[in-house]
Amino acid sequence: MDTYTTRATRIMRRIQELATISEDTQGITRRFGTPAFLTGRALVQSWMEGASLAVRVDSIGNLRARLVSQNPAAKTFVLASHIDTVVNAGKFDGPLGVLLGLDMLEQLVQQQVQLPFHIELIAFSDEEGVRYHTTYLGSKVVAGSFDQSLLQKQDNKGITLTDAITTMGGNVEQLAFDAIPAADWLGYFEAHIEQGPVLWERDIPVAVVTAIAGQQRVEVTFRGMAGHAGTVPMNMRQDALAGAAEFVLAVEQFGLARQEHIVATVGKLDVRNAASNVIPGDVTCSLDLRSPDAMRLTSAYEALRTHAEAIAQRRTLGLVWNLVQQTAPVACNAEMNNLLAQAITEAGYEVVSLVSGAGHDAVPISAVAPATMLFVRCFKGISHNPLENVEERDLAAALHVTDRFLSSLISSYLSVRVEREI
Amino acid sequence: MDTYTTRATRIMRRIQELATISEDTQGITRRFGTPAFLTGRALVQSWMEGASLAVRVDSIGNLRARLVSQNPAAKTFVLASHIDTVVNAGKFDGPLGVLLGLDMLEQLVQQQVQLPFHIELIAFSDEEGVRYHTTYLGSKVVAGSFDQSLLQKQDNKGITLTDAITTMGGNVEQLAFDAIPAADWLGYFEAHIEQGPVLWERDIPVAVVTAIAGQQRVEVTFRGMAGHAGTVPMNMRQDALAGAAEFVLAVEQFGLARQEHIVATVGKLDVRNAASNVIPGDVTCSLDLRSPDAMRLTSAYEALRTHAEAIAQRRTLGLVWNLVQQTAPVACNAEMNNLLAQAITEAGYEVVSLVSGAGHDAVPISAVAPATMLFVRCFKGISHNPLENVEERDLAAALHVTDRFLSSLISSYLSVRVEREI
Repeated sequence: MDTYTTRATRIMRRIQELATISEDTQGITRRFGTPAFLTGRALVQSWMEGASLAVRVDSIGNLRARLVSQNPAAKTFVLASHIDTVVNAGKFDGPLGVLLGLDMLEQLVQQQVQLPFHIELIAFSDEEGVRYHTTYLGSKVVAGSFDQSLLQKQDNKGITLTDAITTMGGNVEQLAFDAIPAADWLGYFEAHIEQGPVLWERDIPVAVVTAIAGQQRVEVTFRGMAGHAGTVPMNMRQDALAGAAEFVLAVEQFGLARQEHIVATVGKLDVRNAASNVIPGDVTCSLDLRSPDAMRLTSAYEALRTHAEAIAQRRTLGLVWNLVQQTAPVACNAEMNNLLAQAITEAGYEVVSLVSGAGHDAVPISAVAPATMLFVRCFKGISHNPLENVEERDLAAALHVTDRFLSSLISSYLSVRVEREI
Repeated sequence: MDTYTTRATRIMRRIQELATISEDTQGITRRFGTPAFLTGRALVQSWMEGASLAVRVDSIGNLRARLVSQNPAAKTFVLASHIDTVVNAGKFDGPLGVLLGLDMLEQLVQQQVQLPFHIELIAFSDEEGVRYHTTYLGSKVVAGSFDQSLLQKQDNKGITLTDAITTMGGNVEQLAFDAIPAADWLGYFEAHIEQGPVLWERDIPVAVVTAIAGQQRVEVTFRGMAGHAGTVPMNMRQDALAGAAEFVLAVEQFGLARQEHIVATVGKLDVRNAASNVIPGDVTCSLDLRSPDAMRLTSAYEALRTHAEAIAQRRTLGLVWNLVQQTAPVACNAEMNNLLAQAITEAGYEVVSLVSGAGHDAVPISAVAPATMLFVRCFKGISHNPLENVEERDLAAALHVTDRFLSSLISSYLSVRVEREI
């Protein structure tokens, strides 16, 4: 077995061990700030400390390990991903990038590499945003773009984000001090599973990410009239669920007709005061729209809003259309991408460039630092699902590529310094 | 003001007072066995006891007050309705019949009427079946048709029906002893709001119920493949919610096309492990079908099952079709109905005969006793909704009719005895 395979085996074992820590016993669920999340983070922290890294937990609950350069002008290069999960998640979405990064730092420590820049490994505390219907709480603090108004948000038990942070031992007063100042960033690298089927279908282990799709998240409420299921004649009903069902199908059709450019999903649907014998009077559903093309994203948003309005009007339903979140499409840094593509070639793989349909912590970070991402193939593109899987050989390939990437980053940095000194 | 108006005012006040007792402060919710249910029942019990009635709580939690006849051959005539509610209910569905019945018994006590038969007033503990997805738990015990296998059922917190009964001070060993034996029944009368728009539209206060529609309740699950909303291309999805949405619309269309004969409703829809950024992999919805015609009910059931299968097959989804409950259509007792129609005429109102689309406690009781029901007009037919309303003048009309009905029942019973004795 080559070195990368041996290292991949160890990373796999850690991913597996972390996956056993969950809010429930049926699957993998570690939402931001929950006891399972804290237990999982403590495990990752113990591995970091075992590698003789200086580790700290910051004010939003990110786990941060640092390798310090002796260079007085050193900037910071960050390797990162997240350790929170969706409900009933897979093992790899997030932990793969963190534990691959940890393995990289362990190698650098063992080899006693003299670093021309600081390297920081971050396990972000909240990327999925499941608990507070937000995204990137962890990486926004590091990027210095955390929105203080979110602190009043409540989870489904009425616990505010402030209380959740305090309960985990964080400090909402300190959030601003945990940002890496824009001038200190050298760059950002994140390895992550593709969560889509392209690499699986093309039989290629890794890809360089050129852009991350923009997102619009909307909460759509249809309001009709609750009534008794046995007594209100069919033609006198104002059934909010029937309206929402029409919307779900309209969203699907819209996405199918434009699938080269956009994906459109209704993932949540809640019938208020639901009972089998009550005509639904109030239904709220989510809309998730994504495109790497800002213009198409905006026009899809407007078109589906018009669709929803037409459904509501035809059915005499009330409509509340609430834009919850929007993220502009983001392009990765061209220089970093070139370095990464070169590393893929050196490692002996074909260079595939992909647009990420999923959002990643690289989105907020790219506002302050040159960011790049490495996608790793996953089984049939399945993610956010217990069937999510990565093969060990693909993880070994990702290690090989990341090794090359970091080495060339270090040498190119040194050569730039030499040039400057001349 | 005439006597009936004065009595109606008092009943209205009691209905209002009972309505303030709820599981939550936003609406009226008193599900079987909850603290709010017990508080509400205690209030009704205090009113019964205040009227010098002998009151007991039976093993399933029904509240039972009895006026005993001195006639050694006396049978029992029951006036009843229920005091449990759906979630976010109206004030009148159930309590109206119980408190109208209480008022009747108060009159009989005051007037020291010598009864030729026993009269029992029952406030059934569970008609809506919201907590255990059952129906008629209270009246089935009284009818002697309680299904013991239900005792193992769990509510959404995992509490079994046995535990719920025990917690409220009931006794599952005693359920069989609380039935009124078939030979002891003289008859059954229930006043209830119509919960439909016919009386409202025809501007008539009351109606006699000739039949109660049969019901089929089905739990339908569509199973697809959960996946990431940003990364799985639209044409590679197996979206369980899109399948369920098609089913919701198919049910609505089916009902609309046959609305003289059937109503069809999807009232609940649950997306398992829902998140706005996850393609739904597992969706369960309810189907509620009702018709007074047994043949049409069966054929509707089969047709919609075929519909669901076709949707699942076309979308490569799994389908689980689970018949949760079925109740055959029930005809009310012709003799009792004639007596009630005659009372309506005597009270000066037009006799309207209606089929009830809603199920009622009269359904299980009709298997053992001659049952009849009086419908009372409600605002626009709205029910299972905080907007549910009954006007005081209609309640006064119902009191007038019930007075006449009970009087003629007593005199006809006496005349039958006299005939027999001759």
